[in-house]
Amino acid sequence: MRASTLLQNIRVVLVNTSHPGNIGGVARAMKNMGLSRLVLVEPRQFPSEEAVARASGATDILDSAQVVSCLEEALAGCSLAFGTSARERRIPWPLIDPRECGVAAVQKADEGAEVALVFGREHAGLTNEELQRCHFHVHIPSDPAFSSLNLAAAVQVLTYEVRMAALAGENAPVAPRQDAIEEGDQPVTADEMESFYGHLEKSLVEIGFLDPASPRHLMTRLRRLYGRSEVTRLEMNILRGILTETLKAARGEHHKRGKTDV
Amino acid sequence: MRASTLLQNIRVVLVNTSHPGNIGGVARAMKNMGLSRLVLVEPRQFPSEEAVARASGATDILDSAQVVSCLEEALAGCSLAFGTSARERRIPWPLIDPRECGVAAVQKADEGAEVALVFGREHAGLTNEELQRCHFHVHIPSDPAFSSLNLAAAVQVLTYEVRMAALAGENAPVAPRQDAIEEGDQPVTADEMESFYGHLEKSLVEIGFLDPASPRHLMTRLRRLYGRSEVTRLEMNILRGILTETLKAARGEHHKRGKTDV
Repeated sequence: MRASTLLQNIRVVLVNTSHPGNIGGVARAMKNMGLSRLVLVEPRQFPSEEAVARASGATDILDSAQVVSCLEEALAGCSLAFGTSARERRIPWPLIDPRECGVAAVQKADEGAEVALVFGREHAGLTNEELQRCHFHVHIPSDPAFSSLNLAAAVQVLTYEVRMAALAGENAPVAPRQDAIEEGDQPVTADEMESFYGHLEKSLVEIGFLDPASPRHLMTRLRRLYGRSEVTRLEMNILRGILTETLKAARGEHHKRGKTDV
Repeated sequence: MRASTLLQNIRVVLVNTSHPGNIGGVARAMKNMGLSRLVLVEPRQFPSEEAVARASGATDILDSAQVVSCLEEALAGCSLAFGTSARERRIPWPLIDPRECGVAAVQKADEGAEVALVFGREHAGLTNEELQRCHFHVHIPSDPAFSSLNLAAAVQVLTYEVRMAALAGENAPVAPRQDAIEEGDQPVTADEMESFYGHLEKSLVEIGFLDPASPRHLMTRLRRLYGRSEVTRLEMNILRGILTETLKAARGEHHKRGKTDV
């Protein structure tokens, strides 16, 4: 299933949110990551201008947000729910990190099932009863000395992991597309590199930097530097141009000014 | 190195932030993820009560934040800089995703080197010139139809990946030994690279390869080549030596033969 399609099966549920600005921030984070279904369990204030301001254009998600009165209703139709948990609880529960959550959520959504990511109150999180309605608890590995993330930031982390998992499943390149690479970006071949090293060595001798009688490790070190750089064709043209002009200059021919043709 | 220690080598740099609330949100995200060093390049308003409010207790990070006047200053001492980029640029640059960024940043910080995560303006991002000061560009794989993340949310994603990488490294059984690295193998800092680019540009003008009236993309392409090579201190000594001899040769002083001292 395409990422954009399966992400529609994953809803974000916010329980008893106090600050409407956070609801807006959540809407923006969701839309950035390609999610669209927001469910609000008894928000203190909604709709709200502050939410619209913080949504920065993700108003369609606010407009279509569903407001419900309890978590049970918010989870209607869901086969899998993840509850975010900052603290370790007395009752042990399957505890996973956001990356594992992203993979598991996408796997389920890809089967056509409905999935929920559930976030608690700004200060108090989810109650034990609410957490027990979730199949997994997700812990964002924050610094124990300062562990409580902003609500929108927590949603950002989980939806980011969901998107990464969806794109990986699609085999979508997170990296640039191959055909977007300019022609001059092709790396040069090994023999072109050898030819360059010959030109470089000759130039260094001519300007008096390399003494052929006592070369030390100079060329070895330069080979190591340029060798690991994966020099492209365009860059090689520049390097060779520099050497040509250096040789001319060393021979006192540098009044014939070269052209910068790149 | 322990996660809490190596994370101190990773700074967050915000360029020309408009909204002080975002600076507070960034401070909170950083502290949640165990980072502490914040550098602000010409913020519109700082210090600010709004920043303190949004920091939700991460005021120590705001109090110790460094305010500087340009990106160059913010990158002082850094061996590796990552610039966040929303768009594809005309000139291609090594583009990685946040996960790759986290791994690379932690690897470098674990060697004791300084690393920077650089974030641009709320609406305009980083300029091409600023992006060219970074070794890698990081793209958060957002929905192309709604791609611009809130600043604090972008910082949250990258610092989350940095923390995940640091924690993974802490649990890894085998880490490279620090004493295996030669002294000359330490990477040079961003300011040493800038100084080198200045020397290089001057030399290219002098030998007639670079026409200051029509520089085209020459320096940009050379920055890209050397920027991704993570030039070591020993290699930098060689490159600077070559430039010094090239200038002498161009000025007809090359009969005083230089020595190969490496």
